[in-house]
Amino acid sequence: MANPFLSLIGAGPGDPDLITVKAIKTISKAKVILYDALVNESLLEYATPDAIIRFVGKRYNCHSISQQGINDLIVDMAYTYGHVARLKGGDPFVFARAAEEIAAAHEAGIGVEVISGVSSALSVPASALIPVTCRGIAESCWITTGTNQAGELSGDIELAARSSATVVILMAMSKLEEIMDIFASHGKSDTPVAIIQEGTTSRQRVISGTVKDILYRAEAAGITNPAVIVVGDVVNLGLKHQQNNSYCLHEKR
Amino acid sequence: MANPFLSLIGAGPGDPDLITVKAIKTISKAKVILYDALVNESLLEYATPDAIIRFVGKRYNCHSISQQGINDLIVDMAYTYGHVARLKGGDPFVFARAAEEIAAAHEAGIGVEVISGVSSALSVPASALIPVTCRGIAESCWITTGTNQAGELSGDIELAARSSATVVILMAMSKLEEIMDIFASHGKSDTPVAIIQEGTTSRQRVISGTVKDILYRAEAAGITNPAVIVVGDVVNLGLKHQQNNSYCLHEKR
Repeated sequence: MANPFLSLIGAGPGDPDLITVKAIKTISKAKVILYDALVNESLLEYATPDAIIRFVGKRYNCHSISQQGINDLIVDMAYTYGHVARLKGGDPFVFARAAEEIAAAHEAGIGVEVISGVSSALSVPASALIPVTCRGIAESCWITTGTNQAGELSGDIELAARSSATVVILMAMSKLEEIMDIFASHGKSDTPVAIIQEGTTSRQRVISGTVKDILYRAEAAGITNPAVIVVGDVVNLGLKHQQNNSYCLHEKR
Repeated sequence: MANPFLSLIGAGPGDPDLITVKAIKTISKAKVILYDALVNESLLEYATPDAIIRFVGKRYNCHSISQQGINDLIVDMAYTYGHVARLKGGDPFVFARAAEEIAAAHEAGIGVEVISGVSSALSVPASALIPVTCRGIAESCWITTGTNQAGELSGDIELAARSSATVVILMAMSKLEEIMDIFASHGKSDTPVAIIQEGTTSRQRVISGTVKDILYRAEAAGITNPAVIVVGDVVNLGLKHQQNNSYCLHEKR
């Protein structure tokens, strides 16, 4: 019988060079690779030629494998072939349901390791030169999807709107209007907002505005998930950085 | 004159294999490398033999270079030698004062790029198998140092204590008692807490307890900065993962 083992790997935000050395080493020795929709497929080239590679994400509204199905597949593959690498977009421990896969592995007697990746929540704002924290502007950063397990808006959004934190909201384009209404109801109508679609990739698009007008700007631009919403004064810092950078790179050099 | 350019690079949380391919490519072509105290020095081996390498961090209470001094050095080095790589522990845009270095570069007409790294805020909890988010347990994650620009406790800690977010607090061992008091005053005396010192490295130490007893446990264990404090029910999930993993890896295999 194969020696079953599960590596949960963060594949980074999209740019294939934002993968870690540790992830590459693990992909290149795994017997099985199970990967998600937001994983850059060029990373699969690190696998050995005889590795079994399977897509287990959701895409284009196609019939997709359930979380229970993925859990079962991990256990079956690990017992049949040995080392399974589970490649997830971003970081495996930020909204990636890794804990459920770990529980399934443990229940079947399979050991696990977690290999952290570059999280989209931090690197996608960075790709628009937006620092999620900055002394004197934002002293903390709150990462959320805006919703609870039932898919309803989380009560935490009220607290976030009252805090001085930069609020980073993932996969929430369908809730954009409701979320912005909550920020507006706490006196933040003029707080800057940026939305970055497919950040760090060559298809990246960035729009910006304020709590009161970002919905119209997003609709006009046709921005959809996967997108990262950033609410806070650091957005203006990012816009300034972009302008200055453009000046430094194109005018002065 | 050299073509001045600044790359702000995240060096990851300590494990040298948690560096990205993009960071390595950039380190290996830079003319100058300026690195911080929390950067693993083995990463300097990626530099070319003729690169100028300089330590600009704080260490052992020695006289250290000021932020203004670092800003000036970046500008001088970029104009004298060209491409400067600025290596920072973790991610450059999470409590790393990168925005100040970008502003200094721009003011001098120097273009910049930011290369995101694996943030300690997320990967250090992961190294103790603690997921910062988990469906039904914690639907968001708040990253803070607990203090404001003046070094005083941030009012946001009150909001964090009232939220359902996992609260991750960096570099705050000196404020541990005050922070735990705030969580206790919001009915969270029994909320689980973990502290991870030098996470992801071979010197990693993890202690756990609750809001009401973690101070004594940390003092008894002699835990000091650099350490990451995690407050939330996900800590128990991490402890369970660790136990199960130990069982799966040592008993069943």
